Amino acid sequence: MSSRLESSVYGSRMKRAAAAARSAGLHALLITPGPDLQYLLGSRADSFERLTCLVVPADGAPVVVVPRLELAGLRPSAAEDLGLAVHDWVDGVDPYALVASLLTSPARTGISDTMPALHALPLAAECGAPQVLATPVLRELRMRKDSAELDALRRAGAAIDRVHARMGEWLRAGRTEAEVGADIGAAIVAEGHTAAEFIIVGSGPHGADPHHEVSERVIERGDVVVVDIGGPVEPGYFSDSTRTYCLGEPAPEVAAKYAVLQRAQQAGLDAVRPGVRAEQVDAACREVLAAEGLADAFVHRTGHGIGLSVHEEPYIVGGNGIELTEGMAFSIEPGIYFAGSWGARIEDIVLVTADGCEPVNVRPHALTVLPG
Amino acid sequence: MSSRLESSVYGSRMKRAAAAARSAGLHALLITPGPDLQYLLGSRADSFERLTCLVVPADGAPVVVVPRLELAGLRPSAAEDLGLAVHDWVDGVDPYALVASLLTSPARTGISDTMPALHALPLAAECGAPQVLATPVLRELRMRKDSAELDALRRAGAAIDRVHARMGEWLRAGRTEAEVGADIGAAIVAEGHTAAEFIIVGSGPHGADPHHEVSERVIERGDVVVVDIGGPVEPGYFSDSTRTYCLGEPAPEVAAKYAVLQRAQQAGLDAVRPGVRAEQVDAACREVLAAEGLADAFVHRTGHGIGLSVHEEPYIVGGNGIELTEGMAFSIEPGIYFAGSWGARIEDIVLVTADGCEPVNVRPHALTVLPG
Repeated sequence: MSSRLESSVYGSRMKRAAAAARSAGLHALLITPGPDLQYLLGSRADSFERLTCLVVPADGAPVVVVPRLELAGLRPSAAEDLGLAVHDWVDGVDPYALVASLLTSPARTGISDTMPALHALPLAAECGAPQVLATPVLRELRMRKDSAELDALRRAGAAIDRVHARMGEWLRAGRTEAEVGADIGAAIVAEGHTAAEFIIVGSGPHGADPHHEVSERVIERGDVVVVDIGGPVEPGYFSDSTRTYCLGEPAPEVAAKYAVLQRAQQAGLDAVRPGVRAEQVDAACREVLAAEGLADAFVHRTGHGIGLSVHEEPYIVGGNGIELTEGMAFSIEPGIYFAGSWGARIEDIVLVTADGCEPVNVRPHALTVLPG
Repeated sequence: MSSRLESSVYGSRMKRAAAAARSAGLHALLITPGPDLQYLLGSRADSFERLTCLVVPADGAPVVVVPRLELAGLRPSAAEDLGLAVHDWVDGVDPYALVASLLTSPARTGISDTMPALHALPLAAECGAPQVLATPVLRELRMRKDSAELDALRRAGAAIDRVHARMGEWLRAGRTEAEVGADIGAAIVAEGHTAAEFIIVGSGPHGADPHHEVSERVIERGDVVVVDIGGPVEPGYFSDSTRTYCLGEPAPEVAAKYAVLQRAQQAGLDAVRPGVRAEQVDAACREVLAAEGLADAFVHRTGHGIGLSVHEEPYIVGGNGIELTEGMAFSIEPGIYFAGSWGARIEDIVLVTADGCEPVNVRPHALTVLPG
């Protein structure tokens, strides 16, 4: 797989972004390195203190502003194929004034959500008008995946499923979480990802911390273990899937509570279809848990969109009234957490279809019992 | 080495930061994950879409706002030892309103330069007053390293020097830059870094791109090779050193131009002492190159400060009037670049002393000839 899509795809995305910016009353979008730049230009440029910025005017042709030092980083992008003007600058030049000189004055701009304050504040000063986040404009594009993106998400899902399918090779009593995590990391790459982006092996009490990573804790017989893993596949789309394992038969209380969690996650899957609001999917999971007295054990949102970012719109959370539409991709990952004791989570990425959803993760949802 | 300093150090830094904020007419500093948070709180918390924020009021006690999910990430920091109030929040709560509720209204705030627009814009809206960068306030603290920081930078320098000393083990004709880079990466860790942060192996024409990383190019006999490498040592301070190698005896033209570069870099070292302006050090390097007709070959600034960030204030660049003071740490790294042909760079980190500077890198500056 190439590291980016056909150049024409990016040309079309920039045109749609410009139109959306115009509709939002903005003069331009200012996009610094991050997933938005990857989405619009196929560029994985990575810079911090020197400004790299894709300027997408509401009217007119996009322009790239880039440090001369980092021109080479632009080469793999679609900039050249699309004939974009490139304004390079050298140390000592004010790149913010350079961006402003490309725009009407004052210029209402939408900036990428990853833009650091280091650039955002001087750009605001030079452009002479308040900034807004570009996210509301870009999420309308980025949330609805096209067929190449959906394919990438399917490939990512299948790749991480293959890693979960091999969990019994590594997850055993007597090993540390870090040792298991290292094996998982190697398998994430071996199964087709370009990197292991995150690896959570939450054993026993560590499973009660949803954001635990790995530790030197030695996994014990009887432990419930939360394994939440993922990474990107070319051209940059992420996998993210959680399964919960038990080293030996689960205690009856664990089995009973896990069964409720499994029903909750299924309720989330069942709730997805176009026209449903994101918050309704969250509520569907939450209600099942609440009915069994487990409301307080579910301490996070139900899910997050996924694509070129691991976490992006739409967030599946109370208060988010976004209506689901075909082509959206997000996680459904309710969990239950009992501090100091154990935790469990089930996570699938789903693609919204015309009348429901297509999970890209198809490993069994039941608590997977491994030899103790 | 511990991953952070004594808690009292952070208490003292936050007090000085508050005083500096007050002097700058700010009501508070708002610090999100990144080097500023590491500097002020000893926290390496790493979060993106959920707000983690250290609030340092000009008057009053600092407070941490953190997602409940990420509370565990706060534990290694000094927050508990210092008895800081911690306001945790759960999905669905507005963390920006929470921060604003801790401040006077409207509140003039200084925000960390790494804060993403995602947080900066809603914080500005909730605080009801223009934001400025916290950098001018914090750089006065962060630029002047204390003795523990200087020690860490010396350890980092010695560690990366040990890697350069071993370059002949790996850098040979017939190997790809990527192969050599992988060996260097392992050695960076083996010699005492916690990770390899960056590895540039710019062989032959790739040496002419200052920001080249590694590639599949096979290194050839006769190549000039720029090797720019570094990483952090505990408690988080970076090494960064460049040496240039030649696989076999250099061509006379290479040797002659390299000799000028070496004089330029020495002129930079010689220019450093308290009271000198950063731009004067840049000029000292540049003048030597210009006198020999190589002004255009030196396409970047002379250096950058270093500490918990690889690149931070003071930048050694034309137009930067900051006066050097004892305890500052920065690179002196002039380079010469000939597109399509070759390049060379010499980089040392230096610590400003009472009457000059102490380089933490002491490997020979001459072009190092390795077997071809």
